[in-house]
Amino acid sequence: MIQPPIRTLHSCDCHFGWDKAVAPAMIVAPGERVTIACRDAGDGQVNGDSTHDTMATLDPGRANPLTGPIHVDGARPGDALIITIEDFSPSGFGWTGLIPGFGLLADQFPDPRLQLWNYDTSGRTPLAFNGIAEIPFAPFIGTIGTAPATPGPHDVIPPRRVGGNMDIRDLRTGTVLYLPVEVEGALLSIGDTHAAQGDGEVCGTAIESGMEVRIKLELARGGAPRFPRYATSGPRPGDLERSGVVATTGIGPDLMTACRDAVADMIDHLSRSIAAEDAYMLCSVAADLRISEIVDAPNWVVSCVIPRSIFVDRASV
Amino acid sequence: MIQPPIRTLHSCDCHFGWDKAVAPAMIVAPGERVTIACRDAGDGQVNGDSTHDTMATLDPGRANPLTGPIHVDGARPGDALIITIEDFSPSGFGWTGLIPGFGLLADQFPDPRLQLWNYDTSGRTPLAFNGIAEIPFAPFIGTIGTAPATPGPHDVIPPRRVGGNMDIRDLRTGTVLYLPVEVEGALLSIGDTHAAQGDGEVCGTAIESGMEVRIKLELARGGAPRFPRYATSGPRPGDLERSGVVATTGIGPDLMTACRDAVADMIDHLSRSIAAEDAYMLCSVAADLRISEIVDAPNWVVSCVIPRSIFVDRASV
Repeated sequence: MIQPPIRTLHSCDCHFGWDKAVAPAMIVAPGERVTIACRDAGDGQVNGDSTHDTMATLDPGRANPLTGPIHVDGARPGDALIITIEDFSPSGFGWTGLIPGFGLLADQFPDPRLQLWNYDTSGRTPLAFNGIAEIPFAPFIGTIGTAPATPGPHDVIPPRRVGGNMDIRDLRTGTVLYLPVEVEGALLSIGDTHAAQGDGEVCGTAIESGMEVRIKLELARGGAPRFPRYATSGPRPGDLERSGVVATTGIGPDLMTACRDAVADMIDHLSRSIAAEDAYMLCSVAADLRISEIVDAPNWVVSCVIPRSIFVDRASV
Repeated sequence: MIQPPIRTLHSCDCHFGWDKAVAPAMIVAPGERVTIACRDAGDGQVNGDSTHDTMATLDPGRANPLTGPIHVDGARPGDALIITIEDFSPSGFGWTGLIPGFGLLADQFPDPRLQLWNYDTSGRTPLAFNGIAEIPFAPFIGTIGTAPATPGPHDVIPPRRVGGNMDIRDLRTGTVLYLPVEVEGALLSIGDTHAAQGDGEVCGTAIESGMEVRIKLELARGGAPRFPRYATSGPRPGDLERSGVVATTGIGPDLMTACRDAVADMIDHLSRSIAAEDAYMLCSVAADLRISEIVDAPNWVVSCVIPRSIFVDRASV
């Protein structure tokens, strides 16, 4: 069978926010593959000359630019759009920031902070963090969704039933994602690519980095899941837990408070040897929030788990 | 240096609930190692003759019997009790149940259900689940805590700042746990050993199984963490994600609702090929609840993640 050529959608085909009224940038048939150029989540407002103050002056109207939408021929409300994630071509430049007013502990971290990352695009060299840590390259799509049926525009920040800014770090090479279709043609858009992140993205930013993403698009007639579903093809990259993990916990009747307690305690723990702002950003790019138990009423347990392998000085954690 | 002999605490030295007034069953010096025999979480009410109905007639007053307490010489309020978990000797018999009124989806599963497990005590053979799945042996301590300073008795079910029924599946061989000490002597008790569990323990029971646990006890003067902290020594056992995972999501402004949505959707997904009750129990013993993002206000994303490797027929999931 002759494979159709892989088509390319450039990052000039970009829109802000979700709106089914945005005209398609491309029309594809089910089974086609597309390479999609994604701008970074800051739409280029952060570059090699940026400083901590840049985080205080970002234009929120330019957050999470989305490349698309792609109209998938024959997609109808109630279908599932099946996206197979095939490959990432990274830019080699990324950033992580503390944006005042944003993030799980925004009240505890009022000041702007910026970490720049210049990294090996082959993915073989971990991303260096201030001589403290080395984060394996683990690229994924932060924002991927179809257009909501409800007339827009809709803010790009919150994810929805149709996906969007889900920041699920398993949306990586080899993963198959099933998204509900709510409008004719599905109208898929993609952006906010990340070079690495922990489960939770606790400071509000990951390693934000523009990339090209190659995907394949298919349809399951009438197969819309209630919420997005996905399947990975193998273990998470980087064998992060090979040297064990360090974990803090939050325990109590409110999951959000337990998450905040667990992350705050991890920052306290790491702050014995590094700046609290660095610890917070490191948690965002490398620590996972896990629900250890959610049944022993009235108190639940959340663990904030960081792998020892990322630390240059493992004895320090 | 001559190691002191390993002492043994038998399961007849057992109490129900937490209370600093319970007399110590053993006094140890920091640095000593103890083998502790733990009854199962049902205190022997479940055996090879039990039926689904057994789950409706369990005496809640006998839940989670605790072996102990152990008085650690010199432990004072404000210290950390450091517990190194060295080894498990399992009984070879376990159970998982749906207990009416208990569990994350208690409203959706009103009927009692029981799964019995007879397993290889060497830990080398996975635990078979009705010809559907095979769960690697991954033993850990479900309940471990020091006595609360507040006069008791206190219900054993909810975990607290001093630990207790935390059901953290990383409290396994090689893990070091740091617990706050609130009373003289710390008064450590242990029980509720599990042969395997997913993060969340969603149906309310894991693979409940009596075991002997060997631990070492040390103190850090004035080192009490705010909540329990732990460090593992290596990856989770079983290489569960080698064949990838299947994941469902819950998306919305309330983490508890998102968790319930994600688990309910996983049960729906698995129910294409197995009974919903089996799917729910399988999630409890093998699926993980992860917080994918907790910053894209106002909607958070929770993923319910189950490894493909446990399924006999991997194509079915």
